[in-house]
Amino acid sequence: MAGLLAIQWDDNRDKLILLDQTKLPNEIEYIEYDTVEGIWVAIKDMIVRGAPAIGVTAGYGLYFGIKDAPEDNFDAFWKVMKEKSDYLNTSRPTAVNLAWALNRMENKVQEFKNTPVAEIKRILREEAKIIHEEDIKICRAIGENFMPLLKDNMGILTHCNAGQLATSKYGTATSPMYLAHEKGWHLKIYSDETRPRLQGSTLTALELFQAGIDVTTITDNMAAMVMSQGKIDAIIVGCDRIAANGDTANKIGTFSVSILAKHFGIPMYIAAPTPTIDMNTPTGKEIPIEERDSKEITCRFGVWTAPKDVKTYNPSFDVTPHENITAIVTEKGIVYPPFEENLKKLFKE
Amino acid sequence: MAGLLAIQWDDNRDKLILLDQTKLPNEIEYIEYDTVEGIWVAIKDMIVRGAPAIGVTAGYGLYFGIKDAPEDNFDAFWKVMKEKSDYLNTSRPTAVNLAWALNRMENKVQEFKNTPVAEIKRILREEAKIIHEEDIKICRAIGENFMPLLKDNMGILTHCNAGQLATSKYGTATSPMYLAHEKGWHLKIYSDETRPRLQGSTLTALELFQAGIDVTTITDNMAAMVMSQGKIDAIIVGCDRIAANGDTANKIGTFSVSILAKHFGIPMYIAAPTPTIDMNTPTGKEIPIEERDSKEITCRFGVWTAPKDVKTYNPSFDVTPHENITAIVTEKGIVYPPFEENLKKLFKE
Repeated sequence: MAGLLAIQWDDNRDKLILLDQTKLPNEIEYIEYDTVEGIWVAIKDMIVRGAPAIGVTAGYGLYFGIKDAPEDNFDAFWKVMKEKSDYLNTSRPTAVNLAWALNRMENKVQEFKNTPVAEIKRILREEAKIIHEEDIKICRAIGENFMPLLKDNMGILTHCNAGQLATSKYGTATSPMYLAHEKGWHLKIYSDETRPRLQGSTLTALELFQAGIDVTTITDNMAAMVMSQGKIDAIIVGCDRIAANGDTANKIGTFSVSILAKHFGIPMYIAAPTPTIDMNTPTGKEIPIEERDSKEITCRFGVWTAPKDVKTYNPSFDVTPHENITAIVTEKGIVYPPFEENLKKLFKE
Repeated sequence: MAGLLAIQWDDNRDKLILLDQTKLPNEIEYIEYDTVEGIWVAIKDMIVRGAPAIGVTAGYGLYFGIKDAPEDNFDAFWKVMKEKSDYLNTSRPTAVNLAWALNRMENKVQEFKNTPVAEIKRILREEAKIIHEEDIKICRAIGENFMPLLKDNMGILTHCNAGQLATSKYGTATSPMYLAHEKGWHLKIYSDETRPRLQGSTLTALELFQAGIDVTTITDNMAAMVMSQGKIDAIIVGCDRIAANGDTANKIGTFSVSILAKHFGIPMYIAAPTPTIDMNTPTGKEIPIEERDSKEITCRFGVWTAPKDVKTYNPSFDVTPHENITAIVTEKGIVYPPFEENLKKLFKE
């Protein structure tokens, strides 16, 4: 399988190739980058999106920023690097993975501060590639850990996009779908379109379709009907943050899906790289919920679909209570209830 | 209250005034009609929509069709009338209320066949007005029968449009909202936008907003969240058909709302004029579910929101099982479970 890759590194030509995600779902265009300014625009304009993918892109971006810096003096080099790093960090200030990747690159420089600058540049180039490879490994491990929960010919419902397009490869919720496809299984995927921003139809349906996986797009309000028809054997979704008790914040609508799944006795699985598990947040109540612009609801498509001045309520996320969750699948293994106890164990092992 | 009226009869000028519903939600334009050809186009092009509203419009349309017919001979008159009636019936062949209203007008003519044609014309004009008034009365009675179930300051969730815009006045699900507003109550209405056709945001939110009622538009997948926040005290929706056991077909997504309501212990009410109760259909399983064009999901707004060739599943309706329904409110009164027994009683009384 290949399908659509958000990020590709051309090691011979020293270029980063990004899929232009602003043109999706019906134009597939790739853009080549080799400057930090280009990467800044790519992150700001959402050419690349998704926390892991932004982190990976930022790593390469910082490398582009320093590859032509003077090599005769570490302090001068550090100053240039710091400047480029701060600059890149302004491209999407709220993206945690962006700051995380830049920090990691900076720490690498400090670790090798007594090494010749030319060598530090090579090390940073390698570090960007390692961040990229680690992301792929984590996603693949999540998929592999899912496999014992799945069987050939299952029907799976997913919500929003926790997909390959948000990561370097495989995605999180989509990882088991790609791995099942690799081994010749025929999973039947139902993708909620996920209003208001429609990540389920514009991204998830697209990437699975492009990879040759059997995917059907439905509107969010059809999930109960397909579940009642026996078409769904498991729910697999990603997450934005998991509290210490297992309460899980994810895209608006996930909570609804979890209640329906419980009603129909369908297992509800969360795909979660361990960094999204926040042991400092005791329960879902402490997770802040962002409210977004009302025009996402009233005028998402350049067409008014509601009266201009009508009130809206537009929470970006909701919290699925831990009692609605069957298991949380991470790159380190599957976590079952009681989550409070078993999530702690995960971090001790 | 007035708000937006889909249909207004100008008795002095012998004209029908229709709200142009193709321009909603942000252009409010009325069109005057006084010919059968005009009414044919208005029904075909969905200037007017909603089963009751189409029936009422057809009544006036047939009157326009015969008002200038020769008056010297009943048989000649009958021939013209039959022609116009058959013609009007082709404007939307699947609309049951259209055929029903035309039939009713034809029967009236037969009843008075020995009366002078000029007098028959006056009778038909009156009959069209009576059909119109009866629709208003039925809707108002549904609202009045709802009132004991509601209290000032309640939060109400509704789905799709069973509103004034689909009827002559008040609507069915919206009728208690208008009546509460008339008596100075402050209900807080949440209107699911109702993908894929968005009747909840383009019609329900619009008509309540225009009437000065407190309405908030949400996407369908936010219903669980607002319910969990204690904002919803009752669900009120309309219906397309109710089976003898109380199973209720309504716009896709209603089934999902009913499961969420049950989960949160919120009463689920169906607003239903008695003609929608079909005692010849034993259960919801026998109600055929229309599947609609996939472009409603992938390209509803002239913008592709999914890959062009991706599979979709687009059932227009779903069936809410009777065990999820708290009560069915009709113009004849409230029906509680057991529905099989109590619906029978309703028709015996």
